[in-house]
Order: sequence, then structure tokens, then C-alpha cells
Amino acid sequence: MKSIKVGLLGIGTVGSGTFNVLKRNQQEIAARAGRAIEITMVADLDVERARQLTSGDVAVVNDAKLVVNNPDIDIVIELIGGYGIAKDLVLQAIANGKHVVTANKALIATHGNEIFKAAQEKGVIVAFEAAVAGGIPIIKALREGLTANSIQWIAGIINGTTNFILSEMRDKGLDFDVVLKEAQRLGYAEADPTFDIEGVDAAHKLTIMASIAFGIPVQFSKAHVEGITKLQATDIRYAEQLGYRIKLLGITKRTAGGIELRVHPTLIPSKRLIANVEGAMNAVLVRGDAVGDTLYYGKGAGAEPTASAVIADLVDITRLATADPEHRVPHLAFQPNAMADTPILPMAEITTSYYLRMHVADQPGVLADVTRILADSSISIDAMLQKEPAAGETRTDIIMLTHQTQEKNVEAAIVKIEALATVVGTVTKIRLEELG
Amino acid sequence: MKSIKVGLLGIGTVGSGTFNVLKRNQQEIAARAGRAIEITMVADLDVERARQLTSGDVAVVNDAKLVVNNPDIDIVIELIGGYGIAKDLVLQAIANGKHVVTANKALIATHGNEIFKAAQEKGVIVAFEAAVAGGIPIIKALREGLTANSIQWIAGIINGTTNFILSEMRDKGLDFDVVLKEAQRLGYAEADPTFDIEGVDAAHKLTIMASIAFGIPVQFSKAHVEGITKLQATDIRYAEQLGYRIKLLGITKRTAGGIELRVHPTLIPSKRLIANVEGAMNAVLVRGDAVGDTLYYGKGAGAEPTASAVIADLVDITRLATADPEHRVPHLAFQPNAMADTPILPMAEITTSYYLRMHVADQPGVLADVTRILADSSISIDAMLQKEPAAGETRTDIIMLTHQTQEKNVEAAIVKIEALATVVGTVTKIRLEELG
Repeated sequence: MKSIKVGLLGIGTVGSGTFNVLKRNQQEIAARAGRAIEITMVADLDVERARQLTSGDVAVVNDAKLVVNNPDIDIVIELIGGYGIAKDLVLQAIANGKHVVTANKALIATHGNEIFKAAQEKGVIVAFEAAVAGGIPIIKALREGLTANSIQWIAGIINGTTNFILSEMRDKGLDFDVVLKEAQRLGYAEADPTFDIEGVDAAHKLTIMASIAFGIPVQFSKAHVEGITKLQATDIRYAEQLGYRIKLLGITKRTAGGIELRVHPTLIPSKRLIANVEGAMNAVLVRGDAVGDTLYYGKGAGAEPTASAVIADLVDITRLATADPEHRVPHLAFQPNAMADTPILPMAEITTSYYLRMHVADQPGVLADVTRILADSSISIDAMLQKEPAAGETRTDIIMLTHQTQEKNVEAAIVKIEALATVVGTVTKIRLEELG
Repeated sequence: MKSIKVGLLGIGTVGSGTFNVLKRNQQEIAARAGRAIEITMVADLDVERARQLTSGDVAVVNDAKLVVNNPDIDIVIELIGGYGIAKDLVLQAIANGKHVVTANKALIATHGNEIFKAAQEKGVIVAFEAAVAGGIPIIKALREGLTANSIQWIAGIINGTTNFILSEMRDKGLDFDVVLKEAQRLGYAEADPTFDIEGVDAAHKLTIMASIAFGIPVQFSKAHVEGITKLQATDIRYAEQLGYRIKLLGITKRTAGGIELRVHPTLIPSKRLIANVEGAMNAVLVRGDAVGDTLYYGKGAGAEPTASAVIADLVDITRLATADPEHRVPHLAFQPNAMADTPILPMAEITTSYYLRMHVADQPGVLADVTRILADSSISIDAMLQKEPAAGETRTDIIMLTHQTQEKNVEAAIVKIEALATVVGTVTKIRLEELG
């Protein structure tokens, strides 16, 4: 049978990983796919380097359009990144009747609806397993493995950089800035780490998972995006004493009023498996109404782990390319005409538990004032930790864990607590999920 | 579009779970599958109970042949179990051109080759996600999610009963017999628990995973099957002191000489995520050459978790039923004509590390004798624990952890150690995997 010809746009880390794995495992991959899959054309601005990486076996061009317009190419792999040129190239490939595989989470999370519509109309597949959690086949699990379930929530550690930083902060008791520099030195954080540390990358991935889980269009602009830059070592320590770890979680939940879609630092009980996911590893915990909790763990980034997902998509397309389009697995798990318009909830309306830390004068009545304010806002307290003032200090920290309540209640209570004369500065608020 | 008509053989725990989930989530499932999926016919010996469970909505018969021979049925779900009547019914359904979904690990692990050949010739699908690890979509991950990889090994906690027993033995320091009775009382172990506690159930599941991972036929008869009935609380305690937990693992590895296929109690470092899988939960750790380690965790049994897998298969078939057979996902991941005849290694030739416990006279020279025997067998020692003799005792326990070596070396060394006059009784040998 004729081999599947693949064109690769961008041969950086993931691109060269894909090229190498496809070559190394070509026999095994062909035995699974039913025919050979080969990269026959590569586009990269650095033509010389691309030639070296592909050792002269493939055509190398510096104009990506030559790939997407080449009639011999069956599948285009887009590894350029970003929303600009990448989007144009993907749409052009679709218009030319080519299947597309992409690792571009930003593109799918922001322009996925337009791209899938174009693909649907043209009868081609746009596959994006590599866009979420690297080599972990989480898109496939959500889209095909858990189809029986009404999915209730997803909570994921889906950014390796921030998980590495949080693991180091906890292990070594260091502050964010110090660990970030270390992470940059080790290659776990980029020179400009903004997308990672501010939660944008995690929110892109979460947006895609929410869409597949709940049958809603991708809508990144409605996600709550909060990173780890403001997290203090002291809160990680207090959380630990209370039996919790702090992770940057992407959380999406189906509630009666709508869908929660939020990325933020989160306390989770230390005994949960997902709390023990350390370093740059990723893990996604999914609750379905039938299956209960399932967890998917692995490397969320890197050349070959991401290549693993890219190639799984190539194999899927090769296996299914000739199927009638209406019988293919839908891009977002649900059939395009069966998508729901369930709203995304504003953060004020989400329900969760909270860790609150306040710095207070060590004098009678403070605790009574604070607990009164919480009670008046219908917030009940699950656990409390009050430290002795340090020697020579007249102030101390109070830490409270609340039961579940709406975010707006907590916000209102915090305003009142901060107005107390005995409370110094602002109240630190970190959301908490039991995941139990 | 016409709905997919499903016939159910056997409406026990998993059968009624499947019926209920399919009904409860019918809208969502149809939105994913592209058309409605409905159970229209049920066969069960207890017709009255089957009628109650299905509340009169479906045709109930007591002869399963009426279902597999009914021309209106598109897919047959086989939940009878065992290899006898179940096999005949599955083959009859295939002969009648029907797709089959089964949770029957014993059937697939022992007669899978014959069944898949029949299905291939008839152009129908036999799906069996529910046969391994309940609701965890591990078959899909191995067959479709990790297709880029040369899979190196799989290590799985794939029997909930034994994991529950081992967790209880560790937590409470109780012996096997005591915990087994408790597990039976709580419903975690069956009245006749043989298949679970002797490792047969785990070996069925492992056989299926090995086949998919390595592209070999299912060959249960070559699996090494060792359960937990001989495991003593004392070894669990010693392992703990050395930083390990004991789990019943199903392990299959690709080596230069062949494939290791073995189920046995195994020490694993306590810090590994999989070592912290407690109670009746399942987890499968897979190492691929590209993706590295990925782990899949969830409930391995129960009505609705298993139903989740059964229904995922129904949806897959519904999505793909009209695809050309040669473009479907192959049953065992590899194309039928691309299967390998890599041999399964006999246990003497497997390579792993070992925990050895011996009861010795507390006198000079014992340790020298034992370590000399090990050195002569080219076995090097990784860690050692020697206990003070208990008050009034003249004997003590020595525990050794070895580096990796071949099983036959260890067997030979044990024979020599047991022949020493200073060694009392037999040497306890438990295999150890670093999984790191």
C-alpha cells in the first residue's frame, strides 16, 4: 500500500523529535498503522540546520506554503506555534484537503472553532493530542475512552514549568524568584516564562479539555487565568502543616449554573495521588459519573514525549483517513451539530473551599471578629492554624481552611476582614479542592 | 439516523450497570456517537429479574441464541464470562456479522486469537476495553495513544481484590488469611477467590496488554502466574523498612531474548506513584521509548466503571462501523499480517532484582558464607538488613536486596544457601522492580 506522505512545518525540538521517532520506530509504526508513514518534506527558516537534522533524506524548503500547497503531501504537521502564520498555514492546508496534526495549544484554544468548522466542511481531520499534556493520551481518553460518562470535573497539573517550580519551592523552602532562576538555568523555564508562570499555557490546555469534556466550543477568553508569581514560600509551608500541597491546577467543572473554567494555585490533600506528582511531570484527574475518578500521568513536554502524541495522531489519521467523515471521531468528541451552549461561570459564582492567611495583632477579640465576619457570610471553617508570635513580635499569622462556598462570599468577607483595625495588610486567599 | 440496536448477554452487576448508564446518559452518548445507542434485547437465565432491571423497556429472553441470531441486533455485548458458552455465543454473533463487545478477560486471553481471526474474516469488530482494568481506558491508550512508541515494559496493579488485601495487610499488620476473610465480608473478594488471589485474573489481563503492546498473539498458557497467598506480613514490614511496598504486579517486558510475561508479588520503591495506589484501585504504568513513563489509574472493577468501558466500545463501534475494515483500528493494535512471533521467556531467564529473607543462626561466618555464594553466582547486593535476635532467640533474620540478575542465578544461589547448616528452613524470595 502507498505510504502516507507527511509535511512538517517547523523542525525545532518537537519537530526533530517527531522526525527521529518516526524514523527509529518506522517498522513498528507501519505495522500498527497498516502502511508506512514518512516525512517527505520539511519547512523551516533555518534550512541548513533542517538539512542536517534530516540528513538529506527529505526535501527542505524555507517557505511553509510550498509544503501546504504540495499535492503529494497527505498530512501536514504544524509545529510553528502562535496564532499568526500558523493559523494561515493550517487553514490553507485544510483548504487544500490535507489532514493536519498540530501541537499548538494557543491556536486550538483561541481559533479552534473556526479551524474545526473549516476541517468539517472540507472533510479532513485536524488532530491535536500533542497540544495537551505532551505524551499523555488525554485527548483520546476524554474523547473516546470516557464517552459513556457525563464528565463532572477535570483537575490537571498541565504545566511542567510551574509544577517544577512549586516542587522546588516546597522541597527547598525557597521563594518563587529564586527557583524561577534555577528553573531557567536547568532549561525547565524559558527565557521569557510569562505564558507558563502566569497560567496562560495551562489555561489554553484546560480550555481544550473543557470543550471535549462538556461538548462546548473552545472559549479561552472566558477562562480565569491566575499564575504562581504571587505565591509565597510561607503559604506552601503552612499548607504542608495542614496536610495539603499547593499545585497550579487547571480546573473545569460542570455545575447546575454553568461551567467553571479556571487556572490558579490550589491546595490539595497531600495524600491524593495527584498531590504527589512532582517536578516537570503532568497529571490529569477526571471524574466521570460512571467511571468515577481516573488519572493520567506522564511527561507533559519534551521532544520525544510530544512527538509520541504527534505520531499517535498520524497513525489515527492513517488508520481512519478513508472512513466516511460522518463516522470519524468528532474533533471535540461531540458531533458538531450536538454542541451545547452551556455558559462559563464568572469566578464570583464558582464554588470551592479556601485557604485564608491573615496577619493579625496578637490580642483578644481578633479571632472573634474574623469568625463573626465569616459566619455572617455563611462561610464555615474546616480547620484553623494559629501560630505563636515570633520572639519580639506582637503580630501573628492565622490560617483558616473553609468548607465549600461561593467565591463572591469569600471576596465580600475578605473586604470586611481587611477593614478590621487588628488585621495587617491583605488577606492571602488560595482556593482548595478536596478532589475526594 | 437509525439508532444502533444492542443485545445484552447476561444482566448481572456489569450488565445492569451498562443498561443504567446507557439510559441515564443516553442524550450525551448519542451526541458523541452520532446516533442513539439502545439495548433492545437482553438474555438472562433469570428472566424475571432481567425484566425488573430493564423495567419492561426491552425484550427479555432466557436463550442467548435468540439474541445473537436476531437480525435486528447490530452489536452483541457478552457479559456471561468463562470460556464455554460465552465463546460459542461470541463466535456465533461474529458468524452472523454482528460486532461484539466483551468484558471477558479469560475468553480473550485464552481464545482471543481464534476470535479475532473469525472477526477479521467476517469484517466485524470485537472490542474488549472492559476486559482490562475496568473503567481505565488502557486498551485504547496502548492500542491508539502510544502507537509512536516501541513499548519497553508494562507494570500494572490490575487486580483490585489483591491490592485491597495487600493494602490492608500493610496498614493493619495482619496476615493474609485474616484480611482475606475481611475482604470477603466487605465484598472485595468473592466466595471462591482463587482466580484473584492466585494471580490468574491479573495474568489474563496482562496477557492481553502484552499482546497489544508487543504485537504478539495472546498466549496465556506461557504466563508465569503467582498469587499472594504465600505472602507473609513480616515481609511486608521488612520491605517497608527498606523503603519499598509489596504489590501484586503484572509485568511484561521486551528484552533482547524475548518477552517477559509474569504476575507475582513485587517490591517497588514507596516513593513511586504506583506504590501509592491503595485499596481496590488499579493502575498501569507503561514505558515507551519516546513518551517515557505514563500511568493510568482508576477503578478496576464495579458495575458502572466497567460499564464505562463497555459503552466506550459501543461508541467506538458506532463511530467506526461503516469504515472500511482495513482502516479500522486493529484488534491487537498491529495489523494481523504484521504480528511478531517473539518468544515468551521462561522465568529462569527473566532479569530483575530480588528481596531475599533468610532465617539464620546468630553466629560468626554466616554472612560471609551467604555473600560468598551470591558473589559466586554473580549476584551483587544493593542493601541489607540484619535484625538483632529477639530476646532469648539464637536465630535472626537477614534480608538482602540484590541488583538485577537472572532468575536462574538466584534460584541456584538459594539452593546453596538453603544447604548451609547455619540457615534454617527456606529462603523467601520476592522479586523487586525499581520502575525508575
